Amino acid sequence: MTLNEKLNKLKQIYRDLTKLDQISCLLSWDQETYMPPLAAEGRAEQLAILAKIIHDKSTSLELSDLLYEVYQNRHELSVEDRKFIEIKYRTWQKQNQLTPEFVATWSSLTSQAIEAWKTAKQKKDFHLFAPFLEQLVALVRTKTSLLGKPNNYDVLLDYYEPGLTKKQVDSLFTVLKTGIKQILSSLPQIGPTRYIEAPISWQKQFTKKVLSLIGYNYQTGRQDEVAHPFMTRVGDQDIRVTNTFHENDVSSFFSALHEGGHALYEQGMDSNYIVLLNDYERSLVLHESQSRFWENFIGRTKTFWSPLWPQMQIELPTVFGSMEFADYMKMVNLVQPSLIRVQADEVTYNLHIIIRYEIEKMLVEDNLPVTQVPIMWAEKYEQYLGIRPKNDAEGCLQDVHWSMGNFGYFPTYALGNILAAQIWVQFQRENSDFSEILSNQNYQHILAWLQTKVHKPGTLLSGLELVEQLTGESLNAQYLLDYLAEKYLS
Amino acid sequence: MTLNEKLNKLKQIYRDLTKLDQISCLLSWDQETYMPPLAAEGRAEQLAILAKIIHDKSTSLELSDLLYEVYQNRHELSVEDRKFIEIKYRTWQKQNQLTPEFVATWSSLTSQAIEAWKTAKQKKDFHLFAPFLEQLVALVRTKTSLLGKPNNYDVLLDYYEPGLTKKQVDSLFTVLKTGIKQILSSLPQIGPTRYIEAPISWQKQFTKKVLSLIGYNYQTGRQDEVAHPFMTRVGDQDIRVTNTFHENDVSSFFSALHEGGHALYEQGMDSNYIVLLNDYERSLVLHESQSRFWENFIGRTKTFWSPLWPQMQIELPTVFGSMEFADYMKMVNLVQPSLIRVQADEVTYNLHIIIRYEIEKMLVEDNLPVTQVPIMWAEKYEQYLGIRPKNDAEGCLQDVHWSMGNFGYFPTYALGNILAAQIWVQFQRENSDFSEILSNQNYQHILAWLQTKVHKPGTLLSGLELVEQLTGESLNAQYLLDYLAEKYLS
Repeated sequence: MTLNEKLNKLKQIYRDLTKLDQISCLLSWDQETYMPPLAAEGRAEQLAILAKIIHDKSTSLELSDLLYEVYQNRHELSVEDRKFIEIKYRTWQKQNQLTPEFVATWSSLTSQAIEAWKTAKQKKDFHLFAPFLEQLVALVRTKTSLLGKPNNYDVLLDYYEPGLTKKQVDSLFTVLKTGIKQILSSLPQIGPTRYIEAPISWQKQFTKKVLSLIGYNYQTGRQDEVAHPFMTRVGDQDIRVTNTFHENDVSSFFSALHEGGHALYEQGMDSNYIVLLNDYERSLVLHESQSRFWENFIGRTKTFWSPLWPQMQIELPTVFGSMEFADYMKMVNLVQPSLIRVQADEVTYNLHIIIRYEIEKMLVEDNLPVTQVPIMWAEKYEQYLGIRPKNDAEGCLQDVHWSMGNFGYFPTYALGNILAAQIWVQFQRENSDFSEILSNQNYQHILAWLQTKVHKPGTLLSGLELVEQLTGESLNAQYLLDYLAEKYLS
Repeated sequence: MTLNEKLNKLKQIYRDLTKLDQISCLLSWDQETYMPPLAAEGRAEQLAILAKIIHDKSTSLELSDLLYEVYQNRHELSVEDRKFIEIKYRTWQKQNQLTPEFVATWSSLTSQAIEAWKTAKQKKDFHLFAPFLEQLVALVRTKTSLLGKPNNYDVLLDYYEPGLTKKQVDSLFTVLKTGIKQILSSLPQIGPTRYIEAPISWQKQFTKKVLSLIGYNYQTGRQDEVAHPFMTRVGDQDIRVTNTFHENDVSSFFSALHEGGHALYEQGMDSNYIVLLNDYERSLVLHESQSRFWENFIGRTKTFWSPLWPQMQIELPTVFGSMEFADYMKMVNLVQPSLIRVQADEVTYNLHIIIRYEIEKMLVEDNLPVTQVPIMWAEKYEQYLGIRPKNDAEGCLQDVHWSMGNFGYFPTYALGNILAAQIWVQFQRENSDFSEILSNQNYQHILAWLQTKVHKPGTLLSGLELVEQLTGESLNAQYLLDYLAEKYLS
């Protein structure tokens, strides 16, 4: 076989593997949306069987040999194909570094830990989760050893965002922390949170319209209701968003824009390569930058909402009819230190991430005893946000990530915000008429720019690589701070 | 390995295969319910990849060797395990009789034929489908050769219902045809069809309640809206029904009872064996008997509807408030020769099946030219029902079965009706207080009886075997005729 024939054969195998990965995603989507309650155990077994088939196929001798040979000669390939092979080689290496025993223990421990976490959170009692967290930390440390750097948090960062180091995160977070504290200290006193009553059936219809407005394509997607919103690709042309609706707030508007941003990215990716990649072979930083771009930079602005406002007042007179537009804008841009990350505003959000990052590092690198986590958590919230959780459910038990073993994952959320700001500035640089584009609601233009500059090249790049290619700079927190200062202090 | 160890190993393999089969069913369910329009091509590819994995696993050397050895020693096994192994051996044999070339041609031709059928039906033009039907008939004839009896319709019947022969079907249908003609000729003149206006949102809620009433368990199931109703098992504890809603009629009530009957059967099957069987390893005759039992024998009665009637009148005063209960019962039991099988009443329905059976046999055994099908169709409808289709869409293009290559399938529908009547009579024989059970709406009692006498033993039996075991008689059309005569002529 020539190199090209080998490459094509590899692509054929990966195309099938991607489809099996998509099937897993559909099974998970169904589990969160429509699956009957007692079907959970059977679904877990179906997912396990699929995972085993995917694992066997992706570590087969045939694939390994082909991949190794093509990888050795990758410099003869096109830029895209070389990148593609490097991604696959990286995945293959990681799959082979983690032993079958480790993978089995991981899978079994995290399944149990997720259930324990659910119970502990419901009962607001960290002690019910602590023994599992202790085992999880031990296993994560084993993972760092298997990946070649014992107890070094860097390999965990690299696992979720290729090339990312704690040196880089530390430096970005130091700037971010100082800047945000400064903004918060200069903010005026904040009034009480505003409560509304918006029927969920109306919110469902309205968020669908918002998604259409930014360019989400229902021919290749749909929106459904779930407990915690997410976006998932379950087919080559099948990218679904989900949303959560509360009668008393408008968070569903911003969840729609957030998950919609993720989905626009998926819908805009390079169609030659996205059909060959697995769910976990995208840059998390890049993905989050796209959700935040639409949710915050586009979505939390007067320009976005003012053309929608008259319609909202007509459709829901009891809610918006008696409200001033300025008050609506204040409501959706309320900055207020709070305990729950997913409900946080765009200023304080990053502090939630920094707290988790600092605790994670101590657990992995400094042997922080697991029992100290709630105390450390409360102290850091006091220190950074001036508030303390009343219980573990609104403290260190609020997020699912640790129970799933996702250590090193949280920082990508804040880095996504940083990247979004840099993309936002770059968009303005390249489009001198940007304020006209925005006031004309010309989201098609913005989306087309993102597709060309971010979505398509981003298919095979990490967030760290893309920001360099797009702006000539590395990740830089100052852009986000400047945006926040201008928005909230001027 | 001992025989028992080999059996257990086999069961383990089949358990995994069943789960993969369930995953395929979920993909198909999603395709009919929620999948976005442009995702169809990708879904077909996902299903094809799964089908290949299932095929490879179920014809693997390991499985084949184990199965052959256990089958040779099946007389040492328990009655259930022997039955189970015989079912699997039968499946394995059929899989091996059909060559890979045949399976590939079949799969490709039927995919194309289904699309051609959709277009032809929409355009009401048989000529657009005829070339495909010609190829399909040729391929079905090849199938009969591969299965060992060239151009013999018996192997097609046996394919869908083990042991069924045309001699048996001919004899049952001769009795049925004569009896139904007699009933029809004795029926009084029929008034015009009644039109109603029942909001679809109300129908959705109401049919869900009807399903609960007969014992359908929403902890392990759900009802969704589709173009053509079906029931599907997508997990060990996940058995879903679907329904189609029309504003102008109450057909959704009876679809709910029909698909609900299929689902109660699935929910009542032997839990040790159902997790080892594939979708196509159930008796179609038995399955249809269960849907018809609830739809017609329980569902089209005054006893069933009279306790629901006051609630229906309150909930939909504009529709049922001004209607007499007797008129509602007339509406849902209207017997009237009609052209569309799925809309036919319980008396004329069987004639629709007999017509398809007679034409199918002529195509497979007597070289009836495909171009003659519309003429033959019109003549038989004229002869049996006194009406002729105005076009092919309401004639020979109405059903999807032929485009899917399902020749030999239709007779199981009428045989399901025959079996349902025999089960109904047996239930009355064994429950002398049956009229009290019915007037008390004690469906739990009926369901428990069905579970013990039909659902559990039926897991490993054909309809032909079950009727013998339950009633001591073979299939006998007289019970259905007696029931119809008593209901409509007395």
